[in-house]
Amino acid sequence: MAMEDKPAAPTSEGQQSIRCKAAVCRKPGEPLIIEEIFVAPPMPHEARIRIICTSLCHSDIIFWKMQEPPAIFPRILGHEAIGVVESVGEGVTEVTKGDIVIPIFMADCEECIDCKSTKSNLCSKFPFDVKPWMLRYDTTRFTNLNGEIINHFIFVSSFSEYTVVDTANLLKIDPAIPPNRACLLSCGVSTGVGAAWKTANVELGSTVAIFGLGCIGLAVAEGARLCGATRIIGVDIKPEKFEIAKKFGVTDFVNPGELENKSVSQVIIEMTGGGADYCFECVGMASLVHEAYASCRKGWGKTIMLGVDKPGSKLSINSTDVLFQGKTLMGSIFGGLKPKSDVPILFKRYMDKELNLDDFVTHEVEFKDINKAFDLLTKGECLRSVIWMDK
Amino acid sequence: MAMEDKPAAPTSEGQQSIRCKAAVCRKPGEPLIIEEIFVAPPMPHEARIRIICTSLCHSDIIFWKMQEPPAIFPRILGHEAIGVVESVGEGVTEVTKGDIVIPIFMADCEECIDCKSTKSNLCSKFPFDVKPWMLRYDTTRFTNLNGEIINHFIFVSSFSEYTVVDTANLLKIDPAIPPNRACLLSCGVSTGVGAAWKTANVELGSTVAIFGLGCIGLAVAEGARLCGATRIIGVDIKPEKFEIAKKFGVTDFVNPGELENKSVSQVIIEMTGGGADYCFECVGMASLVHEAYASCRKGWGKTIMLGVDKPGSKLSINSTDVLFQGKTLMGSIFGGLKPKSDVPILFKRYMDKELNLDDFVTHEVEFKDINKAFDLLTKGECLRSVIWMDK
Ligand SMILES: [Zn+2]
Ligand SMILES: [Zn+2]
Ligand SMILES: [Zn+2]
Ligand SMILES: [Zn+2]
Repeated sequence: MAMEDKPAAPTSEGQQSIRCKAAVCRKPGEPLIIEEIFVAPPMPHEARIRIICTSLCHSDIIFWKMQEPPAIFPRILGHEAIGVVESVGEGVTEVTKGDIVIPIFMADCEECIDCKSTKSNLCSKFPFDVKPWMLRYDTTRFTNLNGEIINHFIFVSSFSEYTVVDTANLLKIDPAIPPNRACLLSCGVSTGVGAAWKTANVELGSTVAIFGLGCIGLAVAEGARLCGATRIIGVDIKPEKFEIAKKFGVTDFVNPGELENKSVSQVIIEMTGGGADYCFECVGMASLVHEAYASCRKGWGKTIMLGVDKPGSKLSINSTDVLFQGKTLMGSIFGGLKPKSDVPILFKRYMDKELNLDDFVTHEVEFKDINKAFDLLTKGECLRSVIWMDK
Repeated sequence: MAMEDKPAAPTSEGQQSIRCKAAVCRKPGEPLIIEEIFVAPPMPHEARIRIICTSLCHSDIIFWKMQEPPAIFPRILGHEAIGVVESVGEGVTEVTKGDIVIPIFMADCEECIDCKSTKSNLCSKFPFDVKPWMLRYDTTRFTNLNGEIINHFIFVSSFSEYTVVDTANLLKIDPAIPPNRACLLSCGVSTGVGAAWKTANVELGSTVAIFGLGCIGLAVAEGARLCGATRIIGVDIKPEKFEIAKKFGVTDFVNPGELENKSVSQVIIEMTGGGADYCFECVGMASLVHEAYASCRKGWGKTIMLGVDKPGSKLSINSTDVLFQGKTLMGSIFGGLKPKSDVPILFKRYMDKELNLDDFVTHEVEFKDINKAFDLLTKGECLRSVIWMDK
């Protein structure tokens, strides 16, 4: 995708680098360090954004802990966010200074075959990648005060007071939406709600089982509830999650740790008289995908993979089970949502008081305390922590 | 499912056993032996059928060669057939003496939740199984002249002049349909056409890749052609299959043996500019399922498994490929067709000269020469051999 060589610090006429603070990840698993950096001006098709607030997603944790490539250091993580456009690159017409936007790590160029198709949300002009620079030019926009290059993260890098984002990754939104709710639709909640709505296409009156009741799993429940599922079974080893899960429509709870001589799939098959219509794996364990597949209804059951397992991990499914059981296995990224046409529908459903975003925000911290958010999520003590940049 | 103990020879008032010839499989892989047997009268919900003709399917070959359970001997194989009802068990109203019927190994009880659902073809009252007796009573209807029990095969056992079939496995058809065409819709051709039509739901103008151009693969091509696919790519190591494949709508051919330094999926991705919309694995090799999955279009591609691999064989797919590529993996048995409501539509399309059945019948043999049909199919020298019982 590179259209030019990688320059050290791109500049655009009439624009200057901004000096600001960013939380830089310098070593895997160690606390982020708030440093002063320069954020270069946006290139054509890009906008520079002042981040209003950002929330911490499990994918940030994965790349924070990761020791080997595609991990890279130093890097600015963060990809769930909301911001205001500070300036735009040459020729940009999609957004303008002062617009309220959310970045979305999935590009939506609106002109490739995939972006034009209603069936795909995988832009083929700018395929999703974990490469640590901007998607269009393969160059970075961040340097520290000594000129050291700081790497990007999935085209967003929101743990910075300012960042540069391609317009293919930007969605302009209604400024009336509270920022500490809007940022959730940038990744996690959209992924879960979309998986139920777009990927699985959950039907009215159906039965759903969700493996893992973190933010994504609860967002699947919320999506299934909005689609009219009448029974939503949550599977988690932490029984304390059931209370919060009820707020997102979970009606039944299975704790794998409390089962004697029965597998989760046996229990779900008994509870539902044959299996759930839709099963969602939201943890990222290949073995749980198998259990989800076994839990879904012969004849029509769908299993949807959402959890991210280690690179190289394999699903191992009996070929006769696939062949003879009439089941479907699907994966989707960003819940199968098209960033620029589907996400606005979720914003509308929030404003119409249908979509519950409020209960996902369990903690709010100041930017200087960003490492607290990492503690909370790694310990499983929060759903979403919102990090405010200006507090 | 057993409703009574297994009697040696069930009888029904007013009916007698019939003495006739059957081709019995006594040892794995050895020629069938034509023996005289007794066929007991039908029990309630059953009919005794005089077979008109039967054709040889790859599943017969699998169970003929199989050494270990679920293989069982002696057994009467055969499941693609057409016959005429000779007598019916007590209370049977669905068919009557003289009706022309095809047996279908998949039950359709028309009253369980699956049979009533439009989404499933897996009858939950009488689940498909390879158990070697009748589905409703777990008893056999065949004995030899010494009283030795001869086992059934998938509720049909058509390699016999007479057989007993449950009404849940019988479809009454128009007697105008030539028997040596009608029998094909009993299993193989229906499976392939159904996989394209019902399981995959192939769309107008789409691109299809088919791995393996045997009878099932060509039936998939025929189904895809009827659904309006514009490009149908056949993959087979035997280039001579391309000529016959054209008759079923195959437009392009890939011979894995002729590729240098490229995988089949690379070639298909190049040919189609990204991958086929639908890929069908019709051979029964887990590794080909992976190749089919890799050949289908990111964003919306569907891979459908049709081939039967060895029991215990595993699919091993990178979990990240499932997660990040927006693809779907599906299996279906009997092409997802509901025996009593979907198969009549295929008969109509044959009678309307839309569905090509004629070109599947490459050989016709007399019953006494049934082992010739086995030779032809094991050598891959036929699509379907029809075996006539009365010649
Ligand atoms: Zn695009
Ligand atoms: Zn995320
Ligand atoms: Zn049924
Ligand atoms: Zn068959």
